[in-house]
Amino acid sequence: MKKTIHIIGLITLLSVFISCTSNTKTESETTIQNTDPLPSWNAGKVKTSIINYVDDVTNTESVNFIKIPDRIATFDNDGNMWSEQPAYFQLFFAIDRIKTLAQEHPEWKREQPFKAVLDDDMKELMKYGEHGLIQIVMATHAGNTTDEFEVIVRDWLATAKHPRFNRPYTDLVYQPMLELLDYLRANDFKTFIVSGGGIEFMRPWVEEVYGIPRDQVIGSSIKTEYDFNNGDPIIKRLAEIDFIDDKEGKPEGINKFIGRKPVFASGNSDGDLQMMRWAASNKLKSFMLYVHHTDSVREWAYDRKSHIGRLDKGLDEANKRGWTVIDMKEDWKIIYPFELIEK
Amino acid sequence: MKKTIHIIGLITLLSVFISCTSNTKTESETTIQNTDPLPSWNAGKVKTSIINYVDDVTNTESVNFIKIPDRIATFDNDGNMWSEQPAYFQLFFAIDRIKTLAQEHPEWKREQPFKAVLDDDMKELMKYGEHGLIQIVMATHAGNTTDEFEVIVRDWLATAKHPRFNRPYTDLVYQPMLELLDYLRANDFKTFIVSGGGIEFMRPWVEEVYGIPRDQVIGSSIKTEYDFNNGDPIIKRLAEIDFIDDKEGKPEGINKFIGRKPVFASGNSDGDLQMMRWAASNKLKSFMLYVHHTDSVREWAYDRKSHIGRLDKGLDEANKRGWTVIDMKEDWKIIYPFELIEK
Repeated sequence: MKKTIHIIGLITLLSVFISCTSNTKTESETTIQNTDPLPSWNAGKVKTSIINYVDDVTNTESVNFIKIPDRIATFDNDGNMWSEQPAYFQLFFAIDRIKTLAQEHPEWKREQPFKAVLDDDMKELMKYGEHGLIQIVMATHAGNTTDEFEVIVRDWLATAKHPRFNRPYTDLVYQPMLELLDYLRANDFKTFIVSGGGIEFMRPWVEEVYGIPRDQVIGSSIKTEYDFNNGDPIIKRLAEIDFIDDKEGKPEGINKFIGRKPVFASGNSDGDLQMMRWAASNKLKSFMLYVHHTDSVREWAYDRKSHIGRLDKGLDEANKRGWTVIDMKEDWKIIYPFELIEK
Repeated sequence: MKKTIHIIGLITLLSVFISCTSNTKTESETTIQNTDPLPSWNAGKVKTSIINYVDDVTNTESVNFIKIPDRIATFDNDGNMWSEQPAYFQLFFAIDRIKTLAQEHPEWKREQPFKAVLDDDMKELMKYGEHGLIQIVMATHAGNTTDEFEVIVRDWLATAKHPRFNRPYTDLVYQPMLELLDYLRANDFKTFIVSGGGIEFMRPWVEEVYGIPRDQVIGSSIKTEYDFNNGDPIIKRLAEIDFIDDKEGKPEGINKFIGRKPVFASGNSDGDLQMMRWAASNKLKSFMLYVHHTDSVREWAYDRKSHIGRLDKGLDEANKRGWTVIDMKEDWKIIYPFELIEK
């Protein structure tokens, strides 16, 4: 987390530097530069269609004008706001956590699926399927209090490094999406995360990294239990699934937590399709945005056949219904915030 | 609802009128009048302690300073933001709804607990206890879509009248609490409703009446199911309880929906005690506020022995721990917004 703050600090400094050195430009050039709300997006039909939509629905003279309380924008997280390869980052967290907890669980050296994790044998781990993953999640995410779990997540983010980039996971957020969030908020949209990931895995860092308050994060959850605890109340995290915020769960979660249909929905996989359809059914003019992972060099390229973040039916439906699809390779000038500094 | 908007409009006009006629006052008098953030609260230790708390925690020089994202304020609804006598208003809604639906259910003339409702025999209805009430709730709140239910609630509020006051139920909100919400928001607190009442019974009107966005309303809920519905997606309301946002459910709901411990919590019954304790356990300076119904003339007087909104253990604990208790009769200059107009 400190690294992230550090980088954001550097970006701020860099922005100041850029604005100070831009005095040599003509006034009109400066104006154009200053008014581009999406500087990390290449010019093209995706960028134009986003800006045209926002201009239209915030224009009180337009028939498509949307009142501020209805400006609800929902964003998937994994693969949409930050990378999700070579595996969901929350899975890396769970694996690291299994290794940390292994000292207290000598039986894991013999018991699957824990043995596979300790042996770094992902192929073996995958044999245990969804049930095996749930065992891993429950062993690593439950059995503590909400306060304890928050510290565990924060500590992990402060030290863990992504295997390819050797950087904190929170460095791998998408700079163009950060700009999109800022742009929508500047136009009085209320931005939400609607993710299949764990709600309490995300909350410790999304506020700092995305500028999205904790109460605007919707995710999958396990059951909890309030305990008076002799006057020092706690909330215990139980080894039982409460809600899966994926596929049909996304519109259900949006209805439960937000109570209003989004006008702007952004995702990257078939797991987001129901959320997209939900937004598309809004009587107000809505905008559906898919991220298509097409950049095998700067990020990863995957879609119809990927086990992680499969985009197949969603891509067909987006094409058929004219939803906007980001071609990551073509549409994004930079992917990660750290590229700004390295340039 | 239209009545409510009308009254709010009148209040606004009245405020303008008051401010226009106050020109004869001296400048310092005007300043005092203008700066009283809680004009419907009588001077006294309750009003003073609220203002002192807000002044303290928003003062950057104070050791008790609270950063804006941590300024979370949670308010119970029934008996805390609006009246709850002679019965919860949502129960009147359910009863009226049973009567409306009775045409389609001729069997209800013979089957309990429906017969009791149709006969206006509340004593008989009470014999069926919690199970009977759940039957009534499920018959009236489920089996439709979220969009349909919203229209049903809005239509009911537009026509139903409270039996004692012969006014729309939304007229019976507490003017002092509306001012408190405004005052907290003006000091960058984020205000939430945390009610045992139905989340989708509240959302259609709280935004307009309390200025609290729909996504900042937490309540009890029934299960829902997303249905693609041949391309016109809907969310169906199922006859199964999902979550009861009362007692232990309140801190659990706060954790799930807000993800942060409140610093300000306000309630009126023992059902709010766990929420109060949760706020009281905040490491940041917190403020616990109980409404004590002491005004048998202007509202109702009830506490330790009431079946609705019982305040017994909560009152003891408030006294013991020095939480602030509003004596409605003494502390509130007016109760309902319409009194402002009638004066």
